[in-house]
Amino acid sequence: MSTRIPRDKQNDYTETMAKRRREFATQHSGTELDHVANYSFNPSQCAGNIENFCGVAQVPIGLAGPLIVNGEHAQGEFYVPLATSEGTLVASYNRGMRLVREAGGVKVSVVDDAMQRAPVFIFDDARQARDFGHWIEENFSAIKEVAESTTNSGKLRNIEQYAAARMLYLRFNFTTGDAAGQNMVGKACFFACEWIKNNYPGVRKYLLSGGMDTDKKHSQINTLHSRGKRVIAEAVIPGELMQTMMGVPAEVLYKTRAVSQVGNFMAGSINTGLHSANGITAIFISTGQDVANVAESSSAVTFADLDDDGNYYIAITIPSLIVATYGGGTGLATQRECLELLGCYGKGNVYKLAEIIGATVLAGELSLASAVLAGDWVSSHDAYGRNR
Amino acid sequence: MSTRIPRDKQNDYTETMAKRRREFATQHSGTELDHVANYSFNPSQCAGNIENFCGVAQVPIGLAGPLIVNGEHAQGEFYVPLATSEGTLVASYNRGMRLVREAGGVKVSVVDDAMQRAPVFIFDDARQARDFGHWIEENFSAIKEVAESTTNSGKLRNIEQYAAARMLYLRFNFTTGDAAGQNMVGKACFFACEWIKNNYPGVRKYLLSGGMDTDKKHSQINTLHSRGKRVIAEAVIPGELMQTMMGVPAEVLYKTRAVSQVGNFMAGSINTGLHSANGITAIFISTGQDVANVAESSSAVTFADLDDDGNYYIAITIPSLIVATYGGGTGLATQRECLELLGCYGKGNVYKLAEIIGATVLAGELSLASAVLAGDWVSSHDAYGRNR
Amino acid sequence: MSTRIPRDKQNDYTETMAKRRREFATQHSGTELDHVANYSFNPSQCAGNIENFCGVAQVPIGLAGPLIVNGEHAQGEFYVPLATSEGTLVASYNRGMRLVREAGGVKVSVVDDAMQRAPVFIFDDARQARDFGHWIEENFSAIKEVAESTTNSGKLRNIEQYAAARMLYLRFNFTTGDAAGQNMVGKACFFACEWIKNNYPGVRKYLLSGGMDTDKKHSQINTLHSRGKRVIAEAVIPGELMQTMMGVPAEVLYKTRAVSQVGNFMAGSINTGLHSANGITAIFISTGQDVANVAESSSAVTFADLDDDGNYYIAITIPSLIVATYGGGTGLATQRECLELLGCYGKGNVYKLAEIIGATVLAGELSLASAVLAGDWVSSHDAYGRNR
Amino acid sequence: MSTRIPRDKQNDYTETMAKRRREFATQHSGTELDHVANYSFNPSQCAGNIENFCGVAQVPIGLAGPLIVNGEHAQGEFYVPLATSEGTLVASYNRGMRLVREAGGVKVSVVDDAMQRAPVFIFDDARQARDFGHWIEENFSAIKEVAESTTNSGKLRNIEQYAAARMLYLRFNFTTGDAAGQNMVGKACFFACEWIKNNYPGVRKYLLSGGMDTDKKHSQINTLHSRGKRVIAEAVIPGELMQTMMGVPAEVLYKTRAVSQVGNFMAGSINTGLHSANGITAIFISTGQDVANVAESSSAVTFADLDDDGNYYIAITIPSLIVATYGGGTGLATQRECLELLGCYGKGNVYKLAEIIGATVLAGELSLASAVLAGDWVSSHDAYGRNR
Repeated sequence: MSTRIPRDKQNDYTETMAKRRREFATQHSGTELDHVANYSFNPSQCAGNIENFCGVAQVPIGLAGPLIVNGEHAQGEFYVPLATSEGTLVASYNRGMRLVREAGGVKVSVVDDAMQRAPVFIFDDARQARDFGHWIEENFSAIKEVAESTTNSGKLRNIEQYAAARMLYLRFNFTTGDAAGQNMVGKACFFACEWIKNNYPGVRKYLLSGGMDTDKKHSQINTLHSRGKRVIAEAVIPGELMQTMMGVPAEVLYKTRAVSQVGNFMAGSINTGLHSANGITAIFISTGQDVANVAESSSAVTFADLDDDGNYYIAITIPSLIVATYGGGTGLATQRECLELLGCYGKGNVYKLAEIIGATVLAGELSLASAVLAGDWVSSHDAYGRNR
Repeated sequence: MSTRIPRDKQNDYTETMAKRRREFATQHSGTELDHVANYSFNPSQCAGNIENFCGVAQVPIGLAGPLIVNGEHAQGEFYVPLATSEGTLVASYNRGMRLVREAGGVKVSVVDDAMQRAPVFIFDDARQARDFGHWIEENFSAIKEVAESTTNSGKLRNIEQYAAARMLYLRFNFTTGDAAGQNMVGKACFFACEWIKNNYPGVRKYLLSGGMDTDKKHSQINTLHSRGKRVIAEAVIPGELMQTMMGVPAEVLYKTRAVSQVGNFMAGSINTGLHSANGITAIFISTGQDVANVAESSSAVTFADLDDDGNYYIAITIPSLIVATYGGGTGLATQRECLELLGCYGKGNVYKLAEIIGATVLAGELSLASAVLAGDWVSSHDAYGRNR
Repeated sequence: MSTRIPRDKQNDYTETMAKRRREFATQHSGTELDHVANYSFNPSQCAGNIENFCGVAQVPIGLAGPLIVNGEHAQGEFYVPLATSEGTLVASYNRGMRLVREAGGVKVSVVDDAMQRAPVFIFDDARQARDFGHWIEENFSAIKEVAESTTNSGKLRNIEQYAAARMLYLRFNFTTGDAAGQNMVGKACFFACEWIKNNYPGVRKYLLSGGMDTDKKHSQINTLHSRGKRVIAEAVIPGELMQTMMGVPAEVLYKTRAVSQVGNFMAGSINTGLHSANGITAIFISTGQDVANVAESSSAVTFADLDDDGNYYIAITIPSLIVATYGGGTGLATQRECLELLGCYGKGNVYKLAEIIGATVLAGELSLASAVLAGDWVSSHDAYGRNR
Repeated sequence: MSTRIPRDKQNDYTETMAKRRREFATQHSGTELDHVANYSFNPSQCAGNIENFCGVAQVPIGLAGPLIVNGEHAQGEFYVPLATSEGTLVASYNRGMRLVREAGGVKVSVVDDAMQRAPVFIFDDARQARDFGHWIEENFSAIKEVAESTTNSGKLRNIEQYAAARMLYLRFNFTTGDAAGQNMVGKACFFACEWIKNNYPGVRKYLLSGGMDTDKKHSQINTLHSRGKRVIAEAVIPGELMQTMMGVPAEVLYKTRAVSQVGNFMAGSINTGLHSANGITAIFISTGQDVANVAESSSAVTFADLDDDGNYYIAITIPSLIVATYGGGTGLATQRECLELLGCYGKGNVYKLAEIIGATVLAGELSLASAVLAGDWVSSHDAYGRNR
């Protein structure tokens, strides 16, 4: 029994090959892959998305909504497809959407947009690295031209510089249209770096990544300088509505935040909100995003205020939401349907999708925050009651 | 046209209701959900996993392997089902698995295991909070008994204490058997907190979460004290094998790490590796894990050494890998098949699964690290060649 | 002209040698060190505190107070000697002390106490490291005995464990009486490590510091697990007093905190307060502390609340305040006088000193926070006035 | 007995008043302040440096050197005055200076220079904040003019922007000549903010500090974007010299770094070096710097490499070294002498001082790193010896 996974070098994206791999897996494990085999598209459609294709994971989708979004790109009511296997997640987001609906919806804005590749250039000493930095500034136009020659939609916005030892770490920021753009900027940056190396004397060596792009991992630099879209979702919930619908006084919600922020800070948490990862992951799976980007996209900064009339202002800032409506997994069968359900499939829609995700996340924060406190409220009540 | 998503309060997990919701979505968006409708299981099976079920996301699965795992629970060859839509991911992990196979496999160990709920107790002043802390230590057995009375498999291991202002933040650590355990420990902790409140005079208020459990978000406390399983995967790659198979001298791999670690540090990255999120996410989707836990699970600590014979020792420590082989999405149709393919479905297998994931992640690190450098190597070669 | 700094191997702590070094410095730089030469103690008294002694820095001391401290060790009114050259610092702390005096003083508590040395033990693989960890737990009593045999006042409290790769990082926590204790615990830990190495087979190598003691540098682990004393200072300021004396409504102070906490979080600041470093440094210099410990001691966690009557509760938690009333520089001429001025010189006083420092820091936070806002208030007023 | 510290509103900086305050302190504490009374300058000289002046702290100064500095501003041999009460500190730095002297000295470069004030502007929603950001960019020249009108030496370099919720956090970067500049930039920024408020409609409120200047506290943004001077010190130590003089093979020094970096990372340490705070604090005290800035200045990034000939390259990057040679405490009696000893008193010398500090810090790192390892080496030897 061969241990080599079957592969057809000529034409690997066929039902025949998928089946051969399932049979191979069955031989080795004794497990029949009947459900995995149940997909509704032609394997040829996932060339470029997967290797050694053998079937699909079927992840349940639940509908939540309507979510009222007051974006600059997304406007009106949306029904959001959430793919998850965690019970109560859809119900909880749905509940939050109901609250923000009653409060007039979620205002969402995309305030920044950049995808990075961050090479490092190594010199003989720190001064050479510093002088190189000046040259990079002076030659930005030429570098931009080289970088952009490799892509239709990528635009080099600016290059950050960070100095340490005899290295200069550069962080190339691109806008990438409706694609997430990691590959696009990787290639553009590579060509730019080669051009730099050939035109600047004294580069000892460069690495295409010096660790400051922090792809697939959270970093403080993402929180500061964004990666993907920087999305801010805001809502104002009247105090009475909060009390009636969620069972929690807005003031309690507001004041307990200070307690949990201290906990957050001591823990060294990268997210001052509660669970943005839940909503983001569920939409990422349903709409064909690179789900591993949850590592970066799930960080968030929350802020709340209570005005003199008792209205609760709440905002969540997602500094590194990596999304696409074009390319990657967005064209796959169910993924495309889910994007279409949101009116977000294809070019020109990436900000719209970002806004819908931002609004969803905010709804989820409100729902969970009030649930935790209402539970606490109830439990306290029970406890006190028991003493009587 | 109603804006209310159809729901049957009596019996909502039926094909009828799923269909009604798809039709509802179509009415509102004009999008036919044909592919989403293509699932191979009875909707009743996903009760407890989803609300407002309307269909599935079909995420392509590719096979990688064989991966040789030298674990304490996973031993031998494994074919790993990776669910993703990102091209080259499967190929890259596969390549890494080939390398570690030639090197004798990946040694993996689970060195810690704990799931948390972290309430905060609020007092009149810091001294009361401190005294409460002593009481908690003295009454640990009683608290443990109360907490464990709520669960069959959860065991309260210890309670960490963190003091700030007039609050005492507690962090309850449970082992949770083969379940991920977030709900289990939430309930156990709630009962423990109620008992504490009723038995300790002077608690002004408590919150079930004080922000130090950092559920669905990365934190430094997770890196220090683990969340889920703490998994360490190690391999030793002979220098010659690295050169032959990956095209990179082990010494180059070793030395460039120091450069990228500086970048990592300045960026404030939470992961000193490259892309653990990729492998973890792909296995999480295929095997029915709570994929939003990628937020925590994707952090990692890497370490490498080069011995006198030129062998490259590499280790990746995943301090907060949250996995289950029982409960949650693990019993869903395709998810169960994928777990079975790994010999990991059901009770008694959670460490085995953790080890397989750890080994997969290490293979992926080796593959990407050498690819980046080989590319650099090639490009340098090209560049120098061009000058001749 | 020799380039070698004069040194008398037999008897170097004399006025003769100090003078020879000043003359040497003058020869090399052309600078007369007249003021540096003006010290009022016998150089023999600073043996053990300095090498190549040539004179003193005269750092101005200003008095602030009375500061009312409601500690468990410090009780009553204190006049605090602040050594600094930064204008307004003393005035600002003095102003804060007046406010808290009117409010009844500062309640301060020392809630934790530990000084660390953190060795790392290296093994062949992660499992050996894990097993070693169990052995450490089982042999704690023996290790404690060995460690404590090297010191009169140091007591080994517990040993934390952190696993990564094939290493086990230990963090030995000692109480150290009235000394800061870094050297004491270094020696005790060294003996313990040697004993461990000789009694546990399979240790490949150990390093006396594995980087987790974070001496002379801030770390998250200090915030979590304390280094030196963990001090919490609290005060309740009546709203009317805040308005009358500081010119800022308590509610403004309370609500703007949320804005600056967001800034703090995005910046990745290690201190959620304003300037604890100022007060701590000034007392450290005047009382002969190891001033370089400002690196650790200056981190802080703040928390505020506003009760229904408009009273402003404010607390600052200093998780790693490293202080001594015995040993180090505490016995030097002016330093001892300043400690005596606080009633803190010598044994049995270290908690008292920690409490006074905590109270001072809190007074300074209140003073600066309200000054910033009152300034803003005034400026806004000016601006609006100008428009009229 | 009055509790009010004596103060003369007309003329407070006199020996009479200093004496009255000492007597007041004696009355209240029973402590004679004889040594504190021993200063060699006229109290009138410390107006602007201290309030309620009553005397001085005498901090011992030891000489270390000669330190060979290959800077762009500091060139040649320097004798460094280190003010401390920690025994062995001077000896250890001296030992490191000897090593780098034999290796040809320390190359030091100042690669960045900026002092910040970071206000926050608050709007009705995130979009208004974003639009305001564009306006700031477009009106940079006008803002610069207003800001610079308030200062002779301060120059506004650029304004960073960070968005969260409905706030826009600005970070004004100034160069400040030979002063540290915190007050200068505070004033300049205040005028700029007032101008902005009066010229941009729709600002709801602004705060002069939004928490992102992180004055007197470390932050990741300082590591990334510098605060004060960004100084990089480098040295190359021949392997044989390291072995002969420090008793440690360069390769051991190089390889153990990887182990301690893992410890650093897990601990969440802000400094990948060992003890830069020691050298920086000692020079800060002797030369009249704002010693509380040790909080920021003590963070550091280290990097090492080993070349094929066994030479050890080591660099330390100090991203936020806050120094002055003019203003603040630099003109005080002993402080000025110490600056003159380094040839750094007064205008035009701030980069020179920064370079000398950088070189000192590097010498100290080498000394301590090799001491730790040589100790380990020796102890290992002992242990093994004992077994024979």
